[in-house]
Amino acid sequence: MSSTWKSILTLSIFGESHGPAIGMTLDGLPAGENIDPEELQTFLNRRAPGRSPQSTPRREGDVPEFLSGLKDGKTTGAPLAAIIRNTNTRSADYGALQDVPRPGHADYTAHVKYGGRHDHAGGGHFSGRLTAPLCIAGGICLQILERRGVEIAAEIVSIGGVTGSEAELMAEIDRVRDAGDSVGGVIACTAIGLPPGLGDPIFAGMENRVASLVFGIPAVKGIEFGAGFQAAHQRGSEHNDPFYLNGGTVKTRTNHHGGILGGITSGMPLVFRVAIKPTPSIAMPQESVNLGACESAMLSVEGRHDPCIVPRAVPCVEAAVAIAVFDAMLGGCGLSL
Amino acid sequence: MSSTWKSILTLSIFGESHGPAIGMTLDGLPAGENIDPEELQTFLNRRAPGRSPQSTPRREGDVPEFLSGLKDGKTTGAPLAAIIRNTNTRSADYGALQDVPRPGHADYTAHVKYGGRHDHAGGGHFSGRLTAPLCIAGGICLQILERRGVEIAAEIVSIGGVTGSEAELMAEIDRVRDAGDSVGGVIACTAIGLPPGLGDPIFAGMENRVASLVFGIPAVKGIEFGAGFQAAHQRGSEHNDPFYLNGGTVKTRTNHHGGILGGITSGMPLVFRVAIKPTPSIAMPQESVNLGACESAMLSVEGRHDPCIVPRAVPCVEAAVAIAVFDAMLGGCGLSL
Amino acid sequence: MSSTWKSILTLSIFGESHGPAIGMTLDGLPAGENIDPEELQTFLNRRAPGRSPQSTPRREGDVPEFLSGLKDGKTTGAPLAAIIRNTNTRSADYGALQDVPRPGHADYTAHVKYGGRHDHAGGGHFSGRLTAPLCIAGGICLQILERRGVEIAAEIVSIGGVTGSEAELMAEIDRVRDAGDSVGGVIACTAIGLPPGLGDPIFAGMENRVASLVFGIPAVKGIEFGAGFQAAHQRGSEHNDPFYLNGGTVKTRTNHHGGILGGITSGMPLVFRVAIKPTPSIAMPQESVNLGACESAMLSVEGRHDPCIVPRAVPCVEAAVAIAVFDAMLGGCGLSL
Amino acid sequence: MSSTWKSILTLSIFGESHGPAIGMTLDGLPAGENIDPEELQTFLNRRAPGRSPQSTPRREGDVPEFLSGLKDGKTTGAPLAAIIRNTNTRSADYGALQDVPRPGHADYTAHVKYGGRHDHAGGGHFSGRLTAPLCIAGGICLQILERRGVEIAAEIVSIGGVTGSEAELMAEIDRVRDAGDSVGGVIACTAIGLPPGLGDPIFAGMENRVASLVFGIPAVKGIEFGAGFQAAHQRGSEHNDPFYLNGGTVKTRTNHHGGILGGITSGMPLVFRVAIKPTPSIAMPQESVNLGACESAMLSVEGRHDPCIVPRAVPCVEAAVAIAVFDAMLGGCGLSL
Repeated sequence: MSSTWKSILTLSIFGESHGPAIGMTLDGLPAGENIDPEELQTFLNRRAPGRSPQSTPRREGDVPEFLSGLKDGKTTGAPLAAIIRNTNTRSADYGALQDVPRPGHADYTAHVKYGGRHDHAGGGHFSGRLTAPLCIAGGICLQILERRGVEIAAEIVSIGGVTGSEAELMAEIDRVRDAGDSVGGVIACTAIGLPPGLGDPIFAGMENRVASLVFGIPAVKGIEFGAGFQAAHQRGSEHNDPFYLNGGTVKTRTNHHGGILGGITSGMPLVFRVAIKPTPSIAMPQESVNLGACESAMLSVEGRHDPCIVPRAVPCVEAAVAIAVFDAMLGGCGLSL
Repeated sequence: MSSTWKSILTLSIFGESHGPAIGMTLDGLPAGENIDPEELQTFLNRRAPGRSPQSTPRREGDVPEFLSGLKDGKTTGAPLAAIIRNTNTRSADYGALQDVPRPGHADYTAHVKYGGRHDHAGGGHFSGRLTAPLCIAGGICLQILERRGVEIAAEIVSIGGVTGSEAELMAEIDRVRDAGDSVGGVIACTAIGLPPGLGDPIFAGMENRVASLVFGIPAVKGIEFGAGFQAAHQRGSEHNDPFYLNGGTVKTRTNHHGGILGGITSGMPLVFRVAIKPTPSIAMPQESVNLGACESAMLSVEGRHDPCIVPRAVPCVEAAVAIAVFDAMLGGCGLSL
Repeated sequence: MSSTWKSILTLSIFGESHGPAIGMTLDGLPAGENIDPEELQTFLNRRAPGRSPQSTPRREGDVPEFLSGLKDGKTTGAPLAAIIRNTNTRSADYGALQDVPRPGHADYTAHVKYGGRHDHAGGGHFSGRLTAPLCIAGGICLQILERRGVEIAAEIVSIGGVTGSEAELMAEIDRVRDAGDSVGGVIACTAIGLPPGLGDPIFAGMENRVASLVFGIPAVKGIEFGAGFQAAHQRGSEHNDPFYLNGGTVKTRTNHHGGILGGITSGMPLVFRVAIKPTPSIAMPQESVNLGACESAMLSVEGRHDPCIVPRAVPCVEAAVAIAVFDAMLGGCGLSL
Repeated sequence: MSSTWKSILTLSIFGESHGPAIGMTLDGLPAGENIDPEELQTFLNRRAPGRSPQSTPRREGDVPEFLSGLKDGKTTGAPLAAIIRNTNTRSADYGALQDVPRPGHADYTAHVKYGGRHDHAGGGHFSGRLTAPLCIAGGICLQILERRGVEIAAEIVSIGGVTGSEAELMAEIDRVRDAGDSVGGVIACTAIGLPPGLGDPIFAGMENRVASLVFGIPAVKGIEFGAGFQAAHQRGSEHNDPFYLNGGTVKTRTNHHGGILGGITSGMPLVFRVAIKPTPSIAMPQESVNLGACESAMLSVEGRHDPCIVPRAVPCVEAAVAIAVFDAMLGGCGLSL
């Protein structure tokens, strides 16, 4: 329950934003898999803040320390455990939030759930910072998948409704920051090179697996596969993807199904999109309540906050689907024992 | 894995469309819960085919037989098991499909996954018929939830892009049927009366729980909570729902968060929407391949098929969220032991 | 939780002794495995009562009906579900037990657990009858394992402390029956032909897997692997099994480790013993309490009861280990993906 | 799978004996539970080596560092994570073991399982050192249970067949050490103060829960509850524990059932015994094989090794049962929601 995802792989994520460390344990990896630390760091840096003028100036480094499961750069078969020390934390910044929850944030629900005993500083266990351990696990799965011919790439489709070049997207983020506001966006992700036959029916389909991981990224409000919500507007004659033979391989002429039929991969690219909501923490004053005094209160979030976490969420989405895909691959694509 | 959903409740679904029976085991229900069989049957009838001119004329009855876990109309605490006998099956209708997979259906991926050894008749284990056991489990949870003040209701938002009255939606389905085609739609679902504090962080949030069940309904291509994909177009000042006090209770003035913050219920209505794709089986000729002969083939699906399963999917969505909500409720909303 | 065992395979057992039916769902079997119904029935008959003068005269038949997962005698890859109808039930026999729990039986603890709302007749969900579904699942795994060169056989070591020939053991059971009493015994089980490398460290070792299933058989009070409790009396120089090479294969000269080292199979025979307690239901008067009247009560269990379930438990033990072994085999013995 | 135990609590154990650190994540604890670090350290010190002349002279300290889930000495509701740094490791000592597996140890099976890619130094992930994280998790559960009136205590019953005073047991260990040998023993454990109604039927009984954790302790070869293997020698009239009323509470006059009936606690003391095998690493020469050269080899294990780990296993057994009991307690003892 809660912060552990268990299928064939087991991923356990722990940590609080301003606690001593965050980390993860990934259990079930095969032994002997090479892990390239530089490639992993490059991947992790994509989600780190402070990488562009558009994201928060607080730089965290986020260099994982591996505690077990790795020897001479290769997996040992034992659970892979890694931590990232929290540094440069400033809990004082968050003192006021204990009583006045941020609209749109987990402050209030965490308060109810844990009776005020949780570590609320910086969002605690609900912080976006907890996606760093997800990215460690996913970054490792990405390396393993790449050697098996699977490539996964996500990209920003729109920011606050604006589509276009990276410059246009970044300009929208700048406008939002200047307004003391925040903004959401849509991310599209594609995985190619998957063999047909991955996934299982009903509750262990690829959609279920991917969704159960992707909703582990805070701020995700929706997910759609292939044609997604557009499929609801289509007729069968338009939506159904015709099968054809391509050099002995079965393919489909279109890919409205997004590479998944009946929960199982078809061999076509696995395609999905994710909706990311705006960051809750904004400088503009917002109406809230003081839970201690039980009275109305206005809140203006000071300090360092991303106006838009969509760019940083891109590798998180890749990480989530990489874990789901490798997990399904460990389950096999239909060959008998 | 696969057809078992395990959280605090364990739901195991079995059966093939044209096999002897379909059914389910639901493990973890408290003892002493009253189950009203008539109310359950009324619920199940909502997903049964043949209830309206718009759905398939094949009537199935779908009266569950309870095999264990019920005594004198009350749960015993032992696993609740129920089956529905398959009748009026006509496997001969499906003979041709073994070699020529329907575009948009699991025929092809199931063939790959199971090496052709699966029961392909009528979609086998991938048939929409497998939502009947889901509705048994969900219908029971709905009754239990209702006694705890939780009400769950789903409704059709659009059919093939058409919104409006039920008459307009049904007219669209008629047009599609007449064209030998099929069509998808969007379902919206709302759960009210949930206490704040249900759900758990990261991988056991309400979104993860609901999504992992809803994607167990064949034909679902997307899910969004609260503002959903629209949240991606919003700014924080617009999206964040202001908190206020209402007679000592914390509420939000708007509900873009859909009743979930940080994976945990806020006490506001839990709101989500689901995209349903068009039925794969259509009378219009479609391009496919003959897997046996390894050559191109045209396919025209004969026989009884719904042009639109959206109306029948409405109770399935209610069932899925009822299971997720009651499961979270069994986990508690934060009170210490 | 409770009546579902979930590892790589998922086994869900349901039913109450005097309810409509008992049954099981086994999810995760590969497709295309041949199941011989006669061989399965022969196996199930070994646990059925009424097969010898020593067991209860109530004959149940116990012919499973398969509801899904089988087609033309082969597994389809979908969950395998089977039920056994309960017949010849006489609930009236058990009326008195509702208030007066049998010493040594689950009557009292089930009463507390379920607040008296459980189906107590015949032991309900706690009945030894629930081992029939376990034997269906195990009997199927045994057939699959046999084709992979694994043979599993259990036998009685002692009855009430008496060792010796089958005649001597049966004579002891006769003496006990004549005394209106019951008696326990020890069963030894051996699995040969297992490849080295099955199982996983710490909580998923072969001992953990086997024990978690074997303790699902009511009346089991202990389990020991290899030298077991005798190992506690040994010195390392005596207990440690020397390795040697036998035609290129690593073997051990003795087998005090019982085929498992570090939770993982060594390739030597997997050997364990199980302690079965005496049947709680005996004709001799026993001291108990009337839970309704809250007063002392004497209890003399009338009706048909086995004086010794050890012979019937033999196939149950084989079933449990077969499920554990095949589950571990599905997890692989160490080859990379 | 493998190093994660998942029931209501989820315990994930990681680390290798000579790697950077060992540790654990415990997910599912209620928020607001006080953890006394000194009391925990006192508990952990009981399993640490070097505490008595009888155990290995290598002192490890084993002071856990908490990385998350604790704030101001209380649980926050987030996963509790703790690590112990490995110091004073001497991998060079173990070089020879890579090719020549120790009889009775996991060296050989780990080699097969992981194709030689595991971290074999000091036993790697199979080392008894991995019981330290188990004791962190268990020590915390013990503190929580104590506040709920549950007391758990284990003690040594025999060492190498010798029973008697602690002095006699220690004298036996001294004799074994002087002989360059090792020896096993039996541990008995009792938990008192448990309410009736804990545990669940079939696969989630208290026996299954306890056994699945206790077999996570390396060197455990057997477990028996209550009368255990002795029950197999008893008649029902002797074994069945008569119920009686004691001031309105139902108790049993004897406790052959060991506090568990049908997998569920009866309110009587939970009693079980565990068999611990002799330490595999002994100075006396043992027959083995050189896996690299594929030839016979003699092995004499040099260096620091406990002649008897039974004293250090005592707190490990307490830890395992504390986790199992608190897990069952979180599942409730039968009160409806």
